[in-house]
Order: sequence, then C-alpha cells, then structure tokens
Amino acid sequence: MTQYRKLIDHDIEVLNNICSPERVYTIDKINADYSHDEMPEYGKFMPEVVVEIINSKEVSAIMKYAYENNIPVTPRGSGTGLCGGAVPIYGGILISLAKMNRILELDEENLTVTVEAGVLLMDLIEYVSEHKLLYPPDPGEKSATIGGNIMTNAGGMRAVKYGVTRDYIMEITAVLPNGEITKFGGKTTKNSSGYSLKDLIIGSEGTIAIVTEAVLKLIPKPKVVMSLLVPFKDLDACINTVPKIIRSKAVPTAMEFMQREVIEAAEEYLGKKFPDKSSDAYLLLTFDGSSRDEIERIYEDVADICLEAGAVDVFISDTEERQESIWNARGVFLEAIKSSTPSMDECDVVVPRNRIVEYVKHVNTLEKQYDVRIRSFGHAGDGNLHVYLCKDNLEDDVWKLRCSKIMKSLYDKAIELGGQVSGEHGIGHAKMPYLKESIGNMQISLMEGIKRVFDPKNVLNPGKII
Amino acid sequence: MTQYRKLIDHDIEVLNNICSPERVYTIDKINADYSHDEMPEYGKFMPEVVVEIINSKEVSAIMKYAYENNIPVTPRGSGTGLCGGAVPIYGGILISLAKMNRILELDEENLTVTVEAGVLLMDLIEYVSEHKLLYPPDPGEKSATIGGNIMTNAGGMRAVKYGVTRDYIMEITAVLPNGEITKFGGKTTKNSSGYSLKDLIIGSEGTIAIVTEAVLKLIPKPKVVMSLLVPFKDLDACINTVPKIIRSKAVPTAMEFMQREVIEAAEEYLGKKFPDKSSDAYLLLTFDGSSRDEIERIYEDVADICLEAGAVDVFISDTEERQESIWNARGVFLEAIKSSTPSMDECDVVVPRNRIVEYVKHVNTLEKQYDVRIRSFGHAGDGNLHVYLCKDNLEDDVWKLRCSKIMKSLYDKAIELGGQVSGEHGIGHAKMPYLKESIGNMQISLMEGIKRVFDPKNVLNPGKII
Repeated sequence: MTQYRKLIDHDIEVLNNICSPERVYTIDKINADYSHDEMPEYGKFMPEVVVEIINSKEVSAIMKYAYENNIPVTPRGSGTGLCGGAVPIYGGILISLAKMNRILELDEENLTVTVEAGVLLMDLIEYVSEHKLLYPPDPGEKSATIGGNIMTNAGGMRAVKYGVTRDYIMEITAVLPNGEITKFGGKTTKNSSGYSLKDLIIGSEGTIAIVTEAVLKLIPKPKVVMSLLVPFKDLDACINTVPKIIRSKAVPTAMEFMQREVIEAAEEYLGKKFPDKSSDAYLLLTFDGSSRDEIERIYEDVADICLEAGAVDVFISDTEERQESIWNARGVFLEAIKSSTPSMDECDVVVPRNRIVEYVKHVNTLEKQYDVRIRSFGHAGDGNLHVYLCKDNLEDDVWKLRCSKIMKSLYDKAIELGGQVSGEHGIGHAKMPYLKESIGNMQISLMEGIKRVFDPKNVLNPGKII
Repeated sequence: MTQYRKLIDHDIEVLNNICSPERVYTIDKINADYSHDEMPEYGKFMPEVVVEIINSKEVSAIMKYAYENNIPVTPRGSGTGLCGGAVPIYGGILISLAKMNRILELDEENLTVTVEAGVLLMDLIEYVSEHKLLYPPDPGEKSATIGGNIMTNAGGMRAVKYGVTRDYIMEITAVLPNGEITKFGGKTTKNSSGYSLKDLIIGSEGTIAIVTEAVLKLIPKPKVVMSLLVPFKDLDACINTVPKIIRSKAVPTAMEFMQREVIEAAEEYLGKKFPDKSSDAYLLLTFDGSSRDEIERIYEDVADICLEAGAVDVFISDTEERQESIWNARGVFLEAIKSSTPSMDECDVVVPRNRIVEYVKHVNTLEKQYDVRIRSFGHAGDGNLHVYLCKDNLEDDVWKLRCSKIMKSLYDKAIELGGQVSGEHGIGHAKMPYLKESIGNMQISLMEGIKRVFDPKNVLNPGKII
C-alpha cells in the first residue's frame, strides 16, 4: 500500500503558481459535494485541495508535481458517476475539469468535433445538432462531461443501433501520471499502429491518464425520428418481445423497457402526466432514418410483431413534442427513484440481450424474497439493466444485510447468464469486489500490471477499479 | 535481448504428444511459405517446427511448454499479412491456426456468430449471408482468417459507414503467453468493467495473446446495394470530390478511388474487361439500405455532386453481376500490381480524409522525383491509401536506396498531415522504425511495458511492433 504525503502550505503555494489562486480551493473553501458523486451511499471523502484547471498544461504541471511528491490526484468532471470513480478516497488533490469546457473545432469534412474534457453532453448535443450532425452516444445523464463519458465508456439509449462512447472517440489528448501530455489515436477512421492505448484509456476511469481533450466522430443527423410506446399487460409479455424484434432484423435506434411504478415516480418527480399508464409494462422504441416512408415501413413491421406478442396497443409518436414528453420521463427515472427513498443501492449489469427476460424475473424474485422495494429500468435492446434497491423505512442493519445479499445475487446471476458487472457506469471503488469475482485473478493481475506501467507510484486516482 | 533455446528432439516429442504427430512438421517437412507472408521482400525466416493446432487446449499446452522452456512462438493464420507480422524471425515454434476453422454458433437473438480463429473471411461472409446477416468489415483479402483480421484490426472497404474489425468483436478467447486460456469481453453490447483488455489484444498482432475464438457482432444484411462508378478526367478532380460528398452528409458504404493504370493491371491479371477505362481516374461508391427508393434518393444527390465537381459521367450498377465485375477488379489490385513487377515495397498510411488529395499529390511527386514506378489505390472515404513501389528493372542497390528515401518521405508526409503509420495492415517487423518515429518514445515505452506485463519472457511473437 502506497503511503501518500499529506499536503502542506508549500504545496498550495505551488498550485497557486500553476493556476491562479482563485481556482485553488483549500480545505475550508471546498464544497462538500466534492466528497462524493451521485451515490453518497458509497462513502464521503474530502479532498485536501480542489483545483479548477483550464488547460492541459495546468493538468500536466500539477500531475508532475504530485507524482514527484507522492500526492494522490483524483480527476473529476461533473461528478455524475454512480460508483465513486471520481471520489478522492485518499484525499490529496482533486482536479476539476468542469471549467475546461470549450468546443474547439467542428470539422465538417472529416465529420469530427474537437472538445475539451469538461464540455457537457447536453451542450455538445445541441451544438452539433445545429450543424445537422449527431453525436450518437446518448447516456441518460446529460449533465455529465464528455471526459467523464470517455472515462466510463458510457453507453446510453442508442447503443442498440449506434454503439457506445468508445466507438466515437478518434483521438484523445491525455496527461499521464508523470505529467507528460500525449495524443493517442488521430483524426483518422482507421488505425492499426501498435497497441491501441487509446482504447485502453477509454473506460479506465481516470486511473492511468487524465483525458483533457478529445476528437469525436459524428454522423449526419437522421432526418426523421419516430418513437413507439407499446403497452403490455405484464412485464413478461413486454420483455419477451425484445428478442423477437431483434430476430426480425429491424434495427431500432433505442429499445427501452419501463414499468408502471417507475413511470408513476417520474410523473410525480416531473409534475407532468405520461401519455399512458394503464398497463403494467411498456416498451419504448425509437427508429431513425432518412425518410418518413422508410421508417414507417420498418415500424409497421415492428408494431405487428408487438401486437402478435400480446401488446395492448401501439402508440406512435411522430412529433418532437410527443417524443420529448415520453423521453423526458425516461430521462428522470433515476432521479425519480432517488427522490422516493432516503437511501438506495444500484447495479448496472449487462447480459446478452436474449437473457434479459430471465434476468428481470430474477430481480423480481429477489424483491419478494428479501422484502426490499426494487425498481429497475433499462436498455432492453442492449441487455443493460439498471436495478435500484430502495431502503425506504428499513432499519440500517436490516437494510445493509439484505442489500448485500441481494447485490451478491444480482451479480452472480449476471455472470451465470454470461453478463458483465457494469454495462456503462464503471467500477469506481464501489464495484471492485464484484469485478474481481467476475473476471478472475488473471485478468485482475493483468490490469494491475498495466496500471503499474502507467502509474508506478499509484498516485492517479488510487483505489479505483483494481 | 532474450536468448532463446533452440529446439531439440525432446521438444518435438512433447509437441507430438500434445497434438497428433501428423500435425507436427519438423524442419525437413516445413513448407517454405511459412518463412514469409505476402511480402517476402521483408525477409524469409524458417520456423524450427510448424504445428497445426485444432483447439485452444493444444495452443495452451504448447504455449505453456514454450514459455517454461524459453522457445519463441509465432501464431499464424493464412499468412496474408503485408508487414511480416506472422513470420518467425527467431525460429522456434510456428503455430498455424488454419485448421481451427469451425463456425461454432449463429445466435440470431443476439445477432452474433461465434467462430474459431482460422475461419476464412470468405467463408464467414458466405455463411452469415445465407442467414440474411452481414459481418460488415470487408478487407480486400478474403482468404485471410478472422483471427488474422482481429490481430491487425483489419479495416477494408466498408469502414466509411460501418467501421473496422474492432467494432465487431464482442468477445475473444485467447491463450496468454503463460498458456492460460481466458475469455475477454462477452456477448454483451455494452461493457464498462475495468480496462478493456479485449481492445488491447485487438490489433496486437499476436504479441500478447493468441486469439483462438471470437464472438462477432453481425447486423441485418441491407436489402439493397448499389454502386456508382464515376469517371473523372484527372485524379485531382476525382479525389477533390471526396470531401464534398462527406460534407453533403450522404453516407456511402464504401468510397474507393482508382486510376487507369491500376485498372489496366487488374484487367490483365483477371483476363476480364472493366466496364470503362476511358478516363484517368475513377471514384467507386457503394450505397446500401432497406429500399431501392431510399438509396436512389441518396445516390442521385451524390451523382449531382460528382457531376458538378467535374465527373465525366456516372455509371450506375444496380445488378449483382455488374457490381461484382467492378468489385472483383478492385479486389485484385494488390495481386495485379504484384504480378507486374519482380519486387515491391508497400505502405498503408492513413490520413484525415480531407487530406487525401494532398497526400496522393505527394505520392505522384515522389514517382517523378525518384523515377520509381508507384501505384496507389485505396479507401478514399477513409483517408487510407495503399502505395506500392515497383522495382521493375532497377538495379538492386539503386532500388534499395530510392525505396528507402521514398518510404521515409511517405511516412513523414503522413505524420505531417495528422495521419498514422498503418491504417489496417499493422506494423509487424517491417514498419517498426516508422511506428517509433510516429508515436514517440513515451508511447513506445508504454507499449513495451504492456508487452512485459503479458509476456515477461518475450516468447510470444518476438520482434514485432516494438
């Protein structure tokens, strides 16, 4: 275990010289939010100093100093993580990239946009949309930074058709633990030039490099987008329809499932009515393409499959307003569940998509078996499920015990079905034991070896992933 | 430098016991083809023994033995590489995966196919096509193995729209240098569970693991495919059209450029006439989609752009036969050039796609400057260019000197334009100095560190990449 040096006044002076002093926050001025992410349940840890950097050179200078002086550094974007990945569990310096948030270049001949790591996903989406372009990854949390998305290889709603963050990162500028600034990859659509260090850094949760800039691949924005909201009388019928749609070779952009309880929570949270909640379970499908005719042909086929599979009805949303009302509700599911309980625990497993029915049934069994309220929703088309255990008014010790048993069972079942510990949220420090159990000692030791190659002194975001 | 042990009779006995003796070829029985790949110009190196393995367990047992006994091992598929990646430069054991060529599972609910590493690309394409599915990566060399494609992260024609091999590899089964068999990734569409070791192995050219099986992602086969062959009066006008098409937000599946000389070589090689060769330069575009109407709309727009940009004509190929005659010619370009000269050298640079005009102009300048016949063709839509220097009847020493000067200039120019040393062929042993110059010491030393983590004794495919 590395012994880290605690910060002294001289360190603060150094940081003040690297950045301007008004962007260096010492202990009495640090906002308590920096001690946790969206899951304070996983522990609160205060950094010794917070530095809001504005360029790669500042990150480089800080990192070099910290490396030489054995001070742990934790990089942080918007802090919207759910596994404690951006939490400074050993104190030290917290580098906030939130102010490094400029869009640097839109290149319409290469269909790329170059951004600083602190750009918010919502700002990026809006900016490229104005140029009739689309950045396809679509995680629910739009106030996340693009840097954070890269660090967790965020997935989102559109992965069914378009893949995940990794698929859209062409080049990254990163600061290594020793302070060196390096570019990985390039503005090229192909690359077979040695080990893909870029792909190693994507999803590494800030443990081997701090990403400060990225060149993102864009696609032309589809001209037409339509959504189908399909009510089913029960969850089984609903989710059983998913493999049938895949088998039919239709390609939805997104395929989400939701249950009435979660919709009701979202209605309450938003103070807005959802178009329909007469049924127990819903599939929400989106299709995009270059013309209305093309999409109508596809969704008519899919509507037929749904009706044959027992759908109560098929609601078509072809106006932007109607689609927004549905997708806005979908977007607040996490917040809505969170606000319904004093505390919760979550998991983000992913299973082969034809096993999701089985998995959801298992979740429902656990709810009854342990008498803990469990809410789940997710990306049916990806086999990626978000499961939320709600503490409600359970006693602390009862909650803890049941929670740990349920979590173990949730992860065991995912592995049994050929799944993975995390589909898109990452490991952080909260999911480390589950990762180890899932991938085994050999892979963990390869990861540890890689970590040592990049960061032999273990000063960059220590205590995460491995 | 590691000292390797030369093979002795006992080693052969061990190999005979691991595999059946009829699959173990000792020195007098080894086909000389195993000493090189498609570029014998980069040196011929005989292995001490060739073993045709048929399952992962055999690979594991051989690897474990070789690791313990300090014997170098080189994995090989069809040997269609172009950089000496599968060539046993230190002798030792050559593991041929060519007989491990079964298609293990087609999963239509997850749209995946599970294959052994030795499956040929052409067999895979045909098999999934029968099930109305498509494996999108489309490298020119269809007799390559899928294992070889994974090891070089092969690109191909359809990367413009569909991306490269990496984007279609969900899970790999690999044998590590110490002999352990491990699965990386999974049959899931998302994964954020620790460092992506799977992505590190993809493109690693058999230096850190031997891939023996893979789960590949498929997509529904597009219902309609059409090609446009567009003649231009000169190369400038031809390639200058590429960024205009990208800017228009049309999405071709493929966008290749070709010059008359290369077409003529292909005609001669195939003994078949190409539809048109009245012009100096051609763009070959393909579009795919779910209906003829949809594609017609798109290609009409693109045809207009081409005509405005100076195209002489636009030939539409909407029948399979016509398209095949064109694409077959495209498919033999490499072989055709090869057969036109006693020796050649090649490079496979990739630049941002809006810089390809500039790059091709540079290539043409070099041809005149050094008086060496240079033929090039490539993936205009990807900025990926294949450049072939033809020795013809030059004296050996003159050829060598000019060749090295031209190659240096080709790589320097690629780097200057923000490009990469290799778009899809890899580094092997032939391109190592260029890689080092391109990415610098820091990235090379990270790669060396990673290599040591996987293979501390440097027995797996030594002398490649780094």
